[in-house]
Amino acid sequence: MEKVRASIITIGDELLIGQVVDTNSAWMAQKLNAMGIWVHRRVAVGDDREAIVSALDEEIASSSIVLLTGGLGPTADDITKPLLAEYFGGRLVQDDRVLAHVQYLFEKVFRRPGPLAERNLRQAEVPDVCTVLFNQIGTAPGMWFEKNGTIIVSMPGVPIEMKGLMENEVLPRLAGLFELPPVAHRTVYTIGAGESIIADRLVAFEASLPSSIKLAYLPHFGTVRLRLTGDDPALVDSYFATLCSLVADITVVTEDISMEAYIGRLFASRGLTLASAESCTGGTIAQQITSVPGSSHYFLGSVVSYSPLVKTSVLDVSASSISASGVVSEPVAVAMVRGVLARIPADYAVATTGYVGPDGGPEAPVGTVWVAVGNRDRVVAKVFHFRYDRALNTQLAALNALNLLRLFVLEN
Amino acid sequence: MEKVRASIITIGDELLIGQVVDTNSAWMAQKLNAMGIWVHRRVAVGDDREAIVSALDEEIASSSIVLLTGGLGPTADDITKPLLAEYFGGRLVQDDRVLAHVQYLFEKVFRRPGPLAERNLRQAEVPDVCTVLFNQIGTAPGMWFEKNGTIIVSMPGVPIEMKGLMENEVLPRLAGLFELPPVAHRTVYTIGAGESIIADRLVAFEASLPSSIKLAYLPHFGTVRLRLTGDDPALVDSYFATLCSLVADITVVTEDISMEAYIGRLFASRGLTLASAESCTGGTIAQQITSVPGSSHYFLGSVVSYSPLVKTSVLDVSASSISASGVVSEPVAVAMVRGVLARIPADYAVATTGYVGPDGGPEAPVGTVWVAVGNRDRVVAKVFHFRYDRALNTQLAALNALNLLRLFVLEN
Repeated sequence: MEKVRASIITIGDELLIGQVVDTNSAWMAQKLNAMGIWVHRRVAVGDDREAIVSALDEEIASSSIVLLTGGLGPTADDITKPLLAEYFGGRLVQDDRVLAHVQYLFEKVFRRPGPLAERNLRQAEVPDVCTVLFNQIGTAPGMWFEKNGTIIVSMPGVPIEMKGLMENEVLPRLAGLFELPPVAHRTVYTIGAGESIIADRLVAFEASLPSSIKLAYLPHFGTVRLRLTGDDPALVDSYFATLCSLVADITVVTEDISMEAYIGRLFASRGLTLASAESCTGGTIAQQITSVPGSSHYFLGSVVSYSPLVKTSVLDVSASSISASGVVSEPVAVAMVRGVLARIPADYAVATTGYVGPDGGPEAPVGTVWVAVGNRDRVVAKVFHFRYDRALNTQLAALNALNLLRLFVLEN
Repeated sequence: MEKVRASIITIGDELLIGQVVDTNSAWMAQKLNAMGIWVHRRVAVGDDREAIVSALDEEIASSSIVLLTGGLGPTADDITKPLLAEYFGGRLVQDDRVLAHVQYLFEKVFRRPGPLAERNLRQAEVPDVCTVLFNQIGTAPGMWFEKNGTIIVSMPGVPIEMKGLMENEVLPRLAGLFELPPVAHRTVYTIGAGESIIADRLVAFEASLPSSIKLAYLPHFGTVRLRLTGDDPALVDSYFATLCSLVADITVVTEDISMEAYIGRLFASRGLTLASAESCTGGTIAQQITSVPGSSHYFLGSVVSYSPLVKTSVLDVSASSISASGVVSEPVAVAMVRGVLARIPADYAVATTGYVGPDGGPEAPVGTVWVAVGNRDRVVAKVFHFRYDRALNTQLAALNALNLLRLFVLEN
């Protein structure tokens, strides 16, 4: 079966001047990929007539599906909609259902009663050569065109609006139109070994893979996701079992989920509760844990003791231990776990204290992070040395703290 | 003066299957834009020979600078380096300085002594037709090529390695090679009015702008950044003053910085200290505040009271007020501010309690968030109703909490 090929075109100067990170394309690619549509190119162009037309020409020539996002807001710099009308040989007409929706949004949701401004009335115009896709959340509708056998869909760039349109309108229609090959993906999430170390280990396994199965390495700072993709689910499962056995010692979970989602499952399934005491991670652990729906069932809370004052007053870390060992030290990390467990009646706690940058301290250089995890019986600690910038060192500290917690809970 | 045009090509299947969000392109575009180089296209292609060659052909034809990232890791799926050697008419040779660096990294940093594996030795190979750019952080070097008057630079896709190469090697060389027009950018950051409301207000201003100055709207959920760009700094400044006067009532700051960076400046400049008490934001406020270097000078800490138990025990919120008004209520938000100020000796505190999703509660529907801010004399509260998903509602709650804090501090 021929691969169905798709292109994603992103329109907007804001992407080319770097004001906005494009998260839409990754989300769209993931959804398309999961249903067997191969995104072979992504292109970003500015709010520029010639650039948009040439991107459309190129992608329509090489893909069966072209998805556009962006260029549909209410301000004057938007040129996309009239251009699409002209490109597909139509003209702009007012759509009554879209107009009613724009009026509803302005009156009831944005709370701006009164007549609509000209620019907002124009939001209800669509080319008369497209199928209008209803956008429940925002004013700009989706527009579905066809040309030379290619499907072209234009959507607003606001992520939540694009996602609603994709899930409610675009993906179901595409699934009905194309005969898609079955796609089987299996992912194992590893931590603690670099890409090349794992690759050394998998030389024979890679050589044994049939050509219908592809192995991808997806490294991300100390974690590597290994993904098998093929068109025969049973065959992928069988090679995946072998792969998992080869990396069992470094495996977090044999699914494509986040560390915090895994921790959530671990705690929920065992009926356990968790608290954190964070210094250098500054709330990142709590933020990650609570990003998982349902986390209120196992996460009780956190004391972000950024100042030494909060360590002594709220967490009862002794001032003498801070002055003897320094605030970035094993005794302080351990005392933070004990202190937060005394304040918050959780079964387990995790604590961090370190220098994430730009500066180090008298007792330890920048990049040094002490992590402690424990329960009421036992606390263990480990030191890490990270060598990146503040943002990345913080992420690594949070990730490694949760990993140490994972190992501690699994041992108990 | 002719605009200097650049293209960014991102290589790697991981971007096309959506496993990785491309943050590199935005960062690169921002840096290039700031020095007067216009990124007119960004293209992402997979680890596919034909796709890479055709992207190179196209972008070299239309740009003076083509920056490539990705496709240079140690695993077998990487095809970019040999392809570049061939494309530019050279062959791969071992580079002694890169080899010494790879050996150093493996021995001292990754702590894997012993002979290098074949795949890691290959990391030290470079095409003999490029200038090697030294990568201080990782194993894959940057490679600088020239063809038909276009500069082509290949860099690894790991963000921190790409950034190091750009800042240390690529940008200084480009600045020396091209005669670049002066570029003046001025940005004002507004909150509380949508893109179309602001656009209504700026109709006459936009009409008054000379063609050499461009106004861009950069909306992002309740905030809009307005950016003027031109080639004459004094002229841009003068129009910027007018723009600022038109949006003074909704302005956070007349610079392109984040809310948390602004809050940091406000507290640091006034010698004030801050604490937070977070329920539904789950540590997001603390995480954002502490993402700013130097935040330890004004941020003391946070109590993330995700469970009602922590609200009563650590923050002394009365159980009777929770049962009378519900946990998502004005009295509880206010009591959280008072409670955290009693625990942590900060000048100001901010608190959140709400239902960010997917579920609401008995006293309030999903999307309801109460925010309170105050000092030892006075506490004010405000309710918000957000209508998005868990992640976005959390971000909006944190942003609006910091904005309420900003207004409260400015009034006092």
